[in-house]
Amino acid sequence: MAEVIPLVILPGKGIEVLDQTLLPGEERYLSLNDVAGVCEAIRTLRVRGAPLLGLVGAAGMAIAAMSRGSDGATLAASAAELIATRPTAVDLGTAVRAAMSEAIAATADERQERLWRFAGAYAERRREEDLAMATFGQALFDHPISVLTHCNTGALATGGIGTALGVIRTAWEQGEIEHVYATETRPLLQGARLTIWELQRLGIPATLLPDTAAASLLASGRVQTVITGADRVALNGDTANKVGTYGLAAVAARHAVPFVIAAPTSTFDPACNDGAGIPIEFRTDSEVGGFGEQRWSPPGTPAYNPAFDVTPAELIAAIVTERGLLRPPYWSAIRTMLGEL
Amino acid sequence: MAEVIPLVILPGKGIEVLDQTLLPGEERYLSLNDVAGVCEAIRTLRVRGAPLLGLVGAAGMAIAAMSRGSDGATLAASAAELIATRPTAVDLGTAVRAAMSEAIAATADERQERLWRFAGAYAERRREEDLAMATFGQALFDHPISVLTHCNTGALATGGIGTALGVIRTAWEQGEIEHVYATETRPLLQGARLTIWELQRLGIPATLLPDTAAASLLASGRVQTVITGADRVALNGDTANKVGTYGLAAVAARHAVPFVIAAPTSTFDPACNDGAGIPIEFRTDSEVGGFGEQRWSPPGTPAYNPAFDVTPAELIAAIVTERGLLRPPYWSAIRTMLGEL
Repeated sequence: MAEVIPLVILPGKGIEVLDQTLLPGEERYLSLNDVAGVCEAIRTLRVRGAPLLGLVGAAGMAIAAMSRGSDGATLAASAAELIATRPTAVDLGTAVRAAMSEAIAATADERQERLWRFAGAYAERRREEDLAMATFGQALFDHPISVLTHCNTGALATGGIGTALGVIRTAWEQGEIEHVYATETRPLLQGARLTIWELQRLGIPATLLPDTAAASLLASGRVQTVITGADRVALNGDTANKVGTYGLAAVAARHAVPFVIAAPTSTFDPACNDGAGIPIEFRTDSEVGGFGEQRWSPPGTPAYNPAFDVTPAELIAAIVTERGLLRPPYWSAIRTMLGEL
Repeated sequence: MAEVIPLVILPGKGIEVLDQTLLPGEERYLSLNDVAGVCEAIRTLRVRGAPLLGLVGAAGMAIAAMSRGSDGATLAASAAELIATRPTAVDLGTAVRAAMSEAIAATADERQERLWRFAGAYAERRREEDLAMATFGQALFDHPISVLTHCNTGALATGGIGTALGVIRTAWEQGEIEHVYATETRPLLQGARLTIWELQRLGIPATLLPDTAAASLLASGRVQTVITGADRVALNGDTANKVGTYGLAAVAARHAVPFVIAAPTSTFDPACNDGAGIPIEFRTDSEVGGFGEQRWSPPGTPAYNPAFDVTPAELIAAIVTERGLLRPPYWSAIRTMLGEL
């Protein structure tokens, strides 16, 4: 078993990031010590995964102070530059703005050191959240089972042990997982490229499937739980996640296979009462007509390409957070949990 | 609008087949006038689609008589060679064996001509079946709607106007279709490569989607009917079709979107009482870890890769055949229909 480490923070020096665009073919780390390099790595998806981008954003602000200077205007310009690389990535913006607040509360002399400390603490908090989620998630298991997961929710996505994949990994270490099935997750194939690679690195027995085969798999009785991450959870428990999640949940329900979400409380949106209020990002046509440089549809073919779909709360058996395991009815469970924050 | 013609039979000369491996990038016909050439074209999937392979098998027997001679032993060897190219393709074997019976009933002198006539008549019968299915299918439409389809069931698959796609095309010609959504149909991408190309050729407005996005599409209210083909229909109406079909049907049911099958009576299997009796072909791991020469999963990654899944009859609103439109309860409807054969 080998740990998957997508980011190393070297205070006063820079960061090293695993170039995820080269996975699974090649494992290469990039040393980054200026803002332009960090921005390029984010923009070209060498680092990806909403939570991991938060870590990179926080570290990026320390790199900005180190390489460009710590006066307020220079830091603010660097923050804007970092955030602009992936404008829809919530964690990136949140982390960069939090780092900026931290910096300007200090004198100019202290700022660089303060920012390195903040980046380290932010990454540590993220790791602890993943571990807490994985611990609470163990209540889902009372005998060894096989599970199905979707997209990538592991170390490559969070910098910790992951959300859904962290729960799975911990259960596997405790002898509660027999086998993991991972969808390939078209169109960007995060399951086929990243999740399978992570599972193999961790020594967890894993099988890949086309997204089309998930319903057959659920009907076959081969899996006893489906577990995925989430991009946004509404107050009633309706959950937006990588497109394809809703279909998995709908078929799982037909076969009485529990469908479970693992998501930190930062994913819950008090501004959304239900799924209808969650905005869905639509992506380009060209992502669907091929993969990378390879094209298999006629040029210019229009595509229906939402990045996310919404799984209604009624299909969700449990939601694992770093504060506990939520069960229906979610409306009261979620409001109680958020009220405690 | 341009017709899609995957096969041209030239009696006494040979056949021309559209090389489907080059689609949609290039439209190139191959002239075939010996058995080796026909076998190579089938084996390498230059011609594919279960019904179309029947046409090619029948014509292949005429080519065998023309190029190798018409004595019984030579014809039998050619028949075996043709069938062995795709051993699981039912229509191919059925057509080749029917051609063989036709040939040996005639004198050696008449056999070649008889086989060319048989190949032509077989193709003509297939075209008429598609047309009859499309005509009966029009009872499904009483105002313009948008539909979702899966895999490839058009001219490229049958040599006629197609099964599900034939119904859709005819409805579109009659002003009853507004828009067609086509899944890409991983792992072999028949939707992305072939269905989209056919729809564009026919001038039918069409949008491609990742298989993962179908549940979102159904939830969005954008489509009012799902219509697919079938590989085998059991006596109770349970239907095996390209993997991914069951998931579409399950989600369609949640949104009260009718799910319809279009399949000729030759697809109905009197030996299967229900879906549990339908054998499912599993295909290679390597089909899932990439596409063509492009690999995106670690080499050797195991895959769950069934070619088909089974949609339970309870999810099927109607089955269109060349003998009429079947509605539940299917057990009696199908037995009545097969009894008439």
